[in-house]
Amino acid sequence: MRSFASDNHAGAHPEVLAAVAEASTGHAAAYGADAWTSRAHDLLREQFGAHARPWLVFNGTAANVLALRVCCRPWEAVVTPATSHLHVDEAGAPEQLGGLKLLTVAGADGKLDPADVLGSLGRVGDQHAVQPRVVSVANATELGTVYGVPELRALADAAHAHGLLLHVDGARLANAAVALDVTLGELTAGAGVDVVSFGLTKNGALGAEAVVLLREGLGDGFAWLRKQHAQLASKMRVLSAQVVALLDGGLWARNAANANAMAARLGAAVAGLDGVRITRPVQANAVFATLPEGAAERLLDAAPFYVWDEQTGEVRWMCAWDTTEQDVDVFAAAVRDAVSGSRRGATR
Amino acid sequence: MRSFASDNHAGAHPEVLAAVAEASTGHAAAYGADAWTSRAHDLLREQFGAHARPWLVFNGTAANVLALRVCCRPWEAVVTPATSHLHVDEAGAPEQLGGLKLLTVAGADGKLDPADVLGSLGRVGDQHAVQPRVVSVANATELGTVYGVPELRALADAAHAHGLLLHVDGARLANAAVALDVTLGELTAGAGVDVVSFGLTKNGALGAEAVVLLREGLGDGFAWLRKQHAQLASKMRVLSAQVVALLDGGLWARNAANANAMAARLGAAVAGLDGVRITRPVQANAVFATLPEGAAERLLDAAPFYVWDEQTGEVRWMCAWDTTEQDVDVFAAAVRDAVSGSRRGATR
Amino acid sequence: MRSFASDNHAGAHPEVLAAVAEASTGHAAAYGADAWTSRAHDLLREQFGAHARPWLVFNGTAANVLALRVCCRPWEAVVTPATSHLHVDEAGAPEQLGGLKLLTVAGADGKLDPADVLGSLGRVGDQHAVQPRVVSVANATELGTVYGVPELRALADAAHAHGLLLHVDGARLANAAVALDVTLGELTAGAGVDVVSFGLTKNGALGAEAVVLLREGLGDGFAWLRKQHAQLASKMRVLSAQVVALLDGGLWARNAANANAMAARLGAAVAGLDGVRITRPVQANAVFATLPEGAAERLLDAAPFYVWDEQTGEVRWMCAWDTTEQDVDVFAAAVRDAVSGSRRGATR
Amino acid sequence: MRSFASDNHAGAHPEVLAAVAEASTGHAAAYGADAWTSRAHDLLREQFGAHARPWLVFNGTAANVLALRVCCRPWEAVVTPATSHLHVDEAGAPEQLGGLKLLTVAGADGKLDPADVLGSLGRVGDQHAVQPRVVSVANATELGTVYGVPELRALADAAHAHGLLLHVDGARLANAAVALDVTLGELTAGAGVDVVSFGLTKNGALGAEAVVLLREGLGDGFAWLRKQHAQLASKMRVLSAQVVALLDGGLWARNAANANAMAARLGAAVAGLDGVRITRPVQANAVFATLPEGAAERLLDAAPFYVWDEQTGEVRWMCAWDTTEQDVDVFAAAVRDAVSGSRRGATR
Repeated sequence: MRSFASDNHAGAHPEVLAAVAEASTGHAAAYGADAWTSRAHDLLREQFGAHARPWLVFNGTAANVLALRVCCRPWEAVVTPATSHLHVDEAGAPEQLGGLKLLTVAGADGKLDPADVLGSLGRVGDQHAVQPRVVSVANATELGTVYGVPELRALADAAHAHGLLLHVDGARLANAAVALDVTLGELTAGAGVDVVSFGLTKNGALGAEAVVLLREGLGDGFAWLRKQHAQLASKMRVLSAQVVALLDGGLWARNAANANAMAARLGAAVAGLDGVRITRPVQANAVFATLPEGAAERLLDAAPFYVWDEQTGEVRWMCAWDTTEQDVDVFAAAVRDAVSGSRRGATR
Repeated sequence: MRSFASDNHAGAHPEVLAAVAEASTGHAAAYGADAWTSRAHDLLREQFGAHARPWLVFNGTAANVLALRVCCRPWEAVVTPATSHLHVDEAGAPEQLGGLKLLTVAGADGKLDPADVLGSLGRVGDQHAVQPRVVSVANATELGTVYGVPELRALADAAHAHGLLLHVDGARLANAAVALDVTLGELTAGAGVDVVSFGLTKNGALGAEAVVLLREGLGDGFAWLRKQHAQLASKMRVLSAQVVALLDGGLWARNAANANAMAARLGAAVAGLDGVRITRPVQANAVFATLPEGAAERLLDAAPFYVWDEQTGEVRWMCAWDTTEQDVDVFAAAVRDAVSGSRRGATR
Repeated sequence: MRSFASDNHAGAHPEVLAAVAEASTGHAAAYGADAWTSRAHDLLREQFGAHARPWLVFNGTAANVLALRVCCRPWEAVVTPATSHLHVDEAGAPEQLGGLKLLTVAGADGKLDPADVLGSLGRVGDQHAVQPRVVSVANATELGTVYGVPELRALADAAHAHGLLLHVDGARLANAAVALDVTLGELTAGAGVDVVSFGLTKNGALGAEAVVLLREGLGDGFAWLRKQHAQLASKMRVLSAQVVALLDGGLWARNAANANAMAARLGAAVAGLDGVRITRPVQANAVFATLPEGAAERLLDAAPFYVWDEQTGEVRWMCAWDTTEQDVDVFAAAVRDAVSGSRRGATR
Repeated sequence: MRSFASDNHAGAHPEVLAAVAEASTGHAAAYGADAWTSRAHDLLREQFGAHARPWLVFNGTAANVLALRVCCRPWEAVVTPATSHLHVDEAGAPEQLGGLKLLTVAGADGKLDPADVLGSLGRVGDQHAVQPRVVSVANATELGTVYGVPELRALADAAHAHGLLLHVDGARLANAAVALDVTLGELTAGAGVDVVSFGLTKNGALGAEAVVLLREGLGDGFAWLRKQHAQLASKMRVLSAQVVALLDGGLWARNAANANAMAARLGAAVAGLDGVRITRPVQANAVFATLPEGAAERLLDAAPFYVWDEQTGEVRWMCAWDTTEQDVDVFAAAVRDAVSGSRRGATR
């Protein structure tokens, strides 16, 4: 099977597998007191800045919930796009585990802008209302778009001007950085971001994410919070080895670059087709489109993908670190067939 | 380094690594809709019974918290030994994530008996008191002892007679089963156990545990609970492949048997030494002992281990699936030296 | 001071005070095992039906959170209007105490209709999404409007058809019932409502509310949930006496009728004024209006009230059980003056 | 009925009722922006010190949970006697609402001493263990004993020396202060206490308690925490008027003095009876005793009281602000009869 449903349908990169195998031989201290974890932390600080405090966890839900809990006291709230994974696809984890209220804002192509932040601030000091404390955006977004450094900087400035923090859900941060040709640090600490969920799973790992605390003073007691949330791996070196494999030597960037290139290739291949409309800017590793009626159903025979919006029929095609040019070309041809089948159908 | 500090200092078994590498190649559906997960579930049902419902999670803290949440409504409580990992070493995860109150009971060698269960039942129906709902014991226990099937059956009967359930924290269930020469099913479902946290991490996995629901009707909505607790792996096949490697062909039992045999060998080698007292029955893969004053400090130069009780000086030596006879013999010799150093010191 | 800011600016009715004084003399069992509580429960069952199970609590936030917790398992969600008190004015209590996610729906004049319920049901069975379990509407609503029995019945039918329950936040249920000239039972159990927060505080009590469970089988363990939420009064007779005073003899209806009549009188008095627009149907005890620029500021010298919407300048004037005709006439005159001051200002 | 079961079986003092009636007439701002609340806060500051920050809540469970939440981050724990109301009689509210773990310590007559605090500190900095943050003791205790100022000072010093805070559950703080002939301030702020739950309900109120924050810097955001916990009274003046009635003019002390005197009178009256053993020092308003077999059952015909310990047969007799000398004398005579019935029975 070759899938365009999600980048988490991809496997793990061979270098990741080799690193995990190497790290998992012999005895080592548990819970992170090992050489691989030291090295992983060093590499994360190289990327995110010398003052970054990285904490490894198992998955993205955990990274997001922990990143937000570390920002918010019980009565503080999270401002986030209505389309965010946090709001839509975490099954209520922020509310259930953190007791956090999400204040959702509509936004074009899944993005917030500074005016949205300001719009959420109406009741500061009112004991009957939660108090916004953190703005949470994804980069790349759920809709495959990318915030540039100036956009993030503007968001961060607006947030900070009103005592709020900026969190970036970076499940696809690598794809965003590569798309913009900036470093991970430039795209986060350099843009004023306070805390990041940095995802490696979708980008070639077996399963590893990092909460990276960037703001001075943030995250006191994080070790306990991670443990309580069942995110302290006993064999931590397994997570750390994945980080090392991806960060040491730039594998993370090569993987993300491939995913992005494949999405661009796919977008280009289908953009001109009659009845196909690319609905979102193709900026990272996703292509969103609408198809002629019936085409999506036919195309699902060729490869798995999601109908993103049942109402509008918008579909999402994700490319991964291991998507090949041949995968794309085969799939683009299938799109062509499915669409032309629709046209033929329409003429009957 | 060869460590006697914990069985989670061990690496992963080569067959586990091979299975993970094989499973992580190519595309597959995420979140468990893949062939490895189906196979892992089948194998778990083979072990625990056709009616068992297994759910894979990342680690033991998660397995325990989820297993208990699934049993308890907000006002229901957990009866557990005061020495249990749940109470002592989960950093308050059951209370913080589940809001659960633990009612602790003292017990010899870390074990509860039916009278302890009955003793916890004084205020049934009293709205001012939490209502005991589940008895949670570990097998093997934190003190390296093992509940036999009749002991568990007696606990289960006492619990059930009063409307309580029985949970087994099976971080070392394999060691207990091998020690007793019974199957995993005989030691759980067969003994009346209602829900199990089945640990594979300490027994040769990279990191994988299963909550296994055994009681009819228990666990409605578990999929959401797991997701909310950030325990739904996107690349689930990574966890599942570990389960398959360990359960298919009996690797789990061979690994546990080695760990147990090494503990027995170590216990036998040091039991007769002057000043060494084995403090707990050596029934699984742990040896607990007290040493002459000063001996523990000297011995820590030879290999890592924990001083279990600072007050009494009791130490814990854990053996793992990959502990070798040579490891044991070298360490036993170091014990001999450390002890005899003490004796010499004592004559000065 | 005479206030039009909120019906909770009103005092307590003399008959309530007398009842509390009478009940608070001498010794009686605590926690509800007293004669006043028995009588209060009987009276609530007379109103809401023989099968109703009432539970007294201190305030409306508690009643709402407990009513919803009793309906929802951790992964289940609440569908509610975006304007609801629950979402806007409880400071995140449902999320923080219950871990509950609210799914908000826009609705005209603060009201939901069956299509809104259906629109919230898109991802049934999807482990990544919370599962809607209860629809929560207020009656009267936050915007002073009232759901009629057929409207509620339609909501209840839509909810039940999809396995959801219907909760009514009845902080002003008395006002709604009186407005419709139906009994409390007809407006709740009779309309298919499953659980009610029945408010007495705004209607002449010192502070007392009831969670009334109407649906068979709902509310197992409620006694403990109430105790855990710090809502079990030790001197329960103090709450119960208030219920008795208001329900025995129809004081609740007389109080609500006065509040409604005063709102109608106020609405009628100002509706024709130049520049005054009544923005919501005046159906209970609230009048919403927009005023000429500057008029609200001037009017605030006459009596307290809230500017409901800073953006549009919409104001809210609440009448209470103890608002008098004279209060209304004086305030209406002040509205007239404030508005005419605006007009004069406008001509300058 | 005259009850010796609990001081919460008592009614409300007539001056409290008069104050509530006076305060509940006419309109006033809600949620505490009223003159009675200002006056209540002033009076609380007079008692507890100019820097005290008082917050009124509905009951003692709420006061305790909020006081502890304000001290503890999620991974921080509460050291408390195993006999504490907090542990035994709050139905798990601290765990369920606050996610707090209680670390219980045995202690003579329900009291902790500095060594108990030190004994709870073994694992500072260990991410696997909750971190003790606050010591919580009741004064008067659940066993009717009283901590003197030097005892509390020693506890506070021990706590502070290790970075912990000291909380006093003062459901019966008035009784303790009167027993010691010290002011409320001397017994709390003056002894190094950081936060108090100050109870008025048992001492003549209808239902009112205060969390009093004494330590500089503690309690940021308390207004929201109180609101989220459903403890923000809309008609706050009702709570405040009770505080004013009890604190203005010393009614609190007169009420507590009566309760204490009645307990002393009862203790003295029965202490010499054959077969009656007073089991705890009678220092506040409780008498604990053991009786000859069968006597307790006979005595329950005379007046309600609790068998405190089913195992030992120890009984508790509580006196209240409204217990009279005649109540005591009648009950003491009944004790005499019940006991002598036992003796007669014993000779047969």
